[in-house]
Amino acid sequence: MAVHGDMLAGGPIDLVVRGAAVFTAVAGAPTLASGGIAVSDGRIVAVGTDAELAGLAARAGRVIDADGAILMPGLINAHCHAACTQHRGLVENLSLEPWLQAVWEVEQHYVTPETTYLGALIGLSELLLSGVTTVMDMFWLCEPTAEAAVDLGIRISTGSWFFDGPGMCGIRPEEWIGRAEAFFERYDGHELVIPGTFPHASYTVGPDNLKAAFALAERHDGRFSTHAAETRAEQRIITERYGASVIRHMERTGLLSERTVLAHCVHLDDGEIDLLAKSGTTVAHNPVSNLKLGSGVARIPDLVAAGVTVALGTDSCISGNDIDMWLSMRLAALLPKGVHEDPTLIRPAEVVAMATRNGAAALGLGDRLGTLEAGKIADFILVSSRAAHAVPIYDLATHLVYAAGKGDVTDVFVAGRQVVKDRRITTIDLAPRLDAMRELGAKIATRTPL
Amino acid sequence: MAVHGDMLAGGPIDLVVRGAAVFTAVAGAPTLASGGIAVSDGRIVAVGTDAELAGLAARAGRVIDADGAILMPGLINAHCHAACTQHRGLVENLSLEPWLQAVWEVEQHYVTPETTYLGALIGLSELLLSGVTTVMDMFWLCEPTAEAAVDLGIRISTGSWFFDGPGMCGIRPEEWIGRAEAFFERYDGHELVIPGTFPHASYTVGPDNLKAAFALAERHDGRFSTHAAETRAEQRIITERYGASVIRHMERTGLLSERTVLAHCVHLDDGEIDLLAKSGTTVAHNPVSNLKLGSGVARIPDLVAAGVTVALGTDSCISGNDIDMWLSMRLAALLPKGVHEDPTLIRPAEVVAMATRNGAAALGLGDRLGTLEAGKIADFILVSSRAAHAVPIYDLATHLVYAAGKGDVTDVFVAGRQVVKDRRITTIDLAPRLDAMRELGAKIATRTPL
Repeated sequence: MAVHGDMLAGGPIDLVVRGAAVFTAVAGAPTLASGGIAVSDGRIVAVGTDAELAGLAARAGRVIDADGAILMPGLINAHCHAACTQHRGLVENLSLEPWLQAVWEVEQHYVTPETTYLGALIGLSELLLSGVTTVMDMFWLCEPTAEAAVDLGIRISTGSWFFDGPGMCGIRPEEWIGRAEAFFERYDGHELVIPGTFPHASYTVGPDNLKAAFALAERHDGRFSTHAAETRAEQRIITERYGASVIRHMERTGLLSERTVLAHCVHLDDGEIDLLAKSGTTVAHNPVSNLKLGSGVARIPDLVAAGVTVALGTDSCISGNDIDMWLSMRLAALLPKGVHEDPTLIRPAEVVAMATRNGAAALGLGDRLGTLEAGKIADFILVSSRAAHAVPIYDLATHLVYAAGKGDVTDVFVAGRQVVKDRRITTIDLAPRLDAMRELGAKIATRTPL
Repeated sequence: MAVHGDMLAGGPIDLVVRGAAVFTAVAGAPTLASGGIAVSDGRIVAVGTDAELAGLAARAGRVIDADGAILMPGLINAHCHAACTQHRGLVENLSLEPWLQAVWEVEQHYVTPETTYLGALIGLSELLLSGVTTVMDMFWLCEPTAEAAVDLGIRISTGSWFFDGPGMCGIRPEEWIGRAEAFFERYDGHELVIPGTFPHASYTVGPDNLKAAFALAERHDGRFSTHAAETRAEQRIITERYGASVIRHMERTGLLSERTVLAHCVHLDDGEIDLLAKSGTTVAHNPVSNLKLGSGVARIPDLVAAGVTVALGTDSCISGNDIDMWLSMRLAALLPKGVHEDPTLIRPAEVVAMATRNGAAALGLGDRLGTLEAGKIADFILVSSRAAHAVPIYDLATHLVYAAGKGDVTDVFVAGRQVVKDRRITTIDLAPRLDAMRELGAKIATRTPL
């Protein structure tokens, strides 16, 4: 049994989960046929077999017998725009650039702090119900999303958008930096909110503002995340404007680093992959969005071979149209095999790593999140295997990637707090929010003013 | 209201479903915001708004208020091997040909009539729970699968495999034709079982046996289905052996016709697409399996443009590893967009058609299955939209393809009989079968004899 040092003194045990098939997501993918974890004060204090946990279970405040379930770390979604819920399925069959124009046109009329909070509450609920315990999220307004995350009890890395054009809600370009600074101050040291800076992209934010956003992230030791190299059109625009490809332009602007998370990176040449690898930049791979918008298929096997940390994201529900990390995992595993006609590419354990410990590394929190290990924060989920599609199971990683899905997630814990119980959110009453979103959708469909 | 002629006489109404968002899947995709269907003696006798159905509801034996649900035709899975359940996730990271060798090696020890029945019962349950009401299925032994289908209450098109090499269970190549004939006789006119012939492939069955299988299907007016053009290796083998590509070889052998359903068709040249179109052959597209085995990405937009009927399948859970028609739908929509970097390819309504009325056409049952229309057989499902990922809904087809999933299917009816109620199978007790499959899987994992 792996036990956290502090616990040898015999402190209080809040919770023991036992009887589960344990997928720790530690490199080398050690698993236990029947075991679990002990939790104290929001931390995992022991990981072991049922026999090893018996003593801790005897003095635990609560014991969960998880027979028939898989216990694993909560999923980490490295790229999302949860507040977009209200526009789910509204703008279809367009590639990124005209799609963005169409989305922004509608958003100008329907993005307010209130609709952002409502959209985020529903989008984050969708994530939580599917076993996502941490999300990197960016949107025009980060404050309502952060508030929704805290109300729900999901862990979030977010922070101010930067955008050089006219923004939503009348925000002028020069205001972003102050908003970003204020967000860092408001959430400094917060248990659930991990502040960073989130400029939109290098085709919508000039080098000076990108540098300012990066400097701010650096000063607060936060993350810096932006969209990059998503489409061929973007590569053309940046090359015309700056005389360098997207990743080279970012490198020259000083944006590549271990604190940088670049979403998409679909269109890269070998030199750009090298730059990402050498700088320690993380790529957040969004296979569903990249397919749906016709952006293309990212070179994930090449990125992995070059040593780039690849995390997984869902992107928003306007380019999804659900926000399903299990589908992202499935496609991360399937796409390279099919497109390159090579079934040996990208193994299941690598994919689960992308959705767990690589996500934690992307956040700079590899020592605290992403695996089931004594000493880490108790963000974990239970995945039912009492289902026709879940028998038999020969290998846990194979099962998780190729057969399991969001509908199998029954219970979700963030820092030891149960936020989903038996497939229901415990922290808010979701039903009236769904009704409110249906009403908002009806207004948007008929272009009725708010 | 569309009413079936017989009902004008005022016959008995067994069931009215009302209050649903109705997706009829009729070409042009007419939908109703709040309506339903009336069912009498296993047939749909009326499709209409709630107001239109009020009179029929007043005298119906049962009324279901389906507020918050989408009512649509049951899905039709045009290619599956349901009985493979026991080998789900066992043979991984191989391309088709070595994968088949590995699977067959294990199957020699673990395929019996009893394991086939158990595997089929679970595989077909998985399909039924996900809203599939009809499946085209092939396996070494078709009889136990047909029995499982009847016990469960799912509609199935199946029939004898043909295979020139040594088969499972000691079946010799010359026995297949007699088994095929016997199956036709046993299930002649059966309500749920639609017999056909199902030779494995043109690389495992020679021209004479393929011709015999086709002639038998023709004589009984049944379907003829086989694997075709799945991999580059197959194209190479057939070209070397017969001096013609796969589809040309099949055409010369007299196998292309309106009764022919070819699974996969990943690697086709333009001439082969023409042959499929001119002969009225249906293609059963299996995007998940084609990706996972590294077979490639089928030319679906070209097939559709040429006028080929494209139906959708899941293939087996050994190349899946779940058998999920919703994932097939999602990928049928997403893959062409991403691979061709064109988001206008393959619209949602086309994809739902592939999974419903094109599947019915593949079976030669377009007049009886595949849409919600008065006069058709009452195979239909309810899909919940009471979920975070299901708000708002701007367009039903878009929602069904890009946001809904198997977990949303709550109720399934086959010929008016409720076989899934509130996400549970009504016809068998599934739990002990899952236990039995876990035990069988444990034996297979350790290569313990049966």
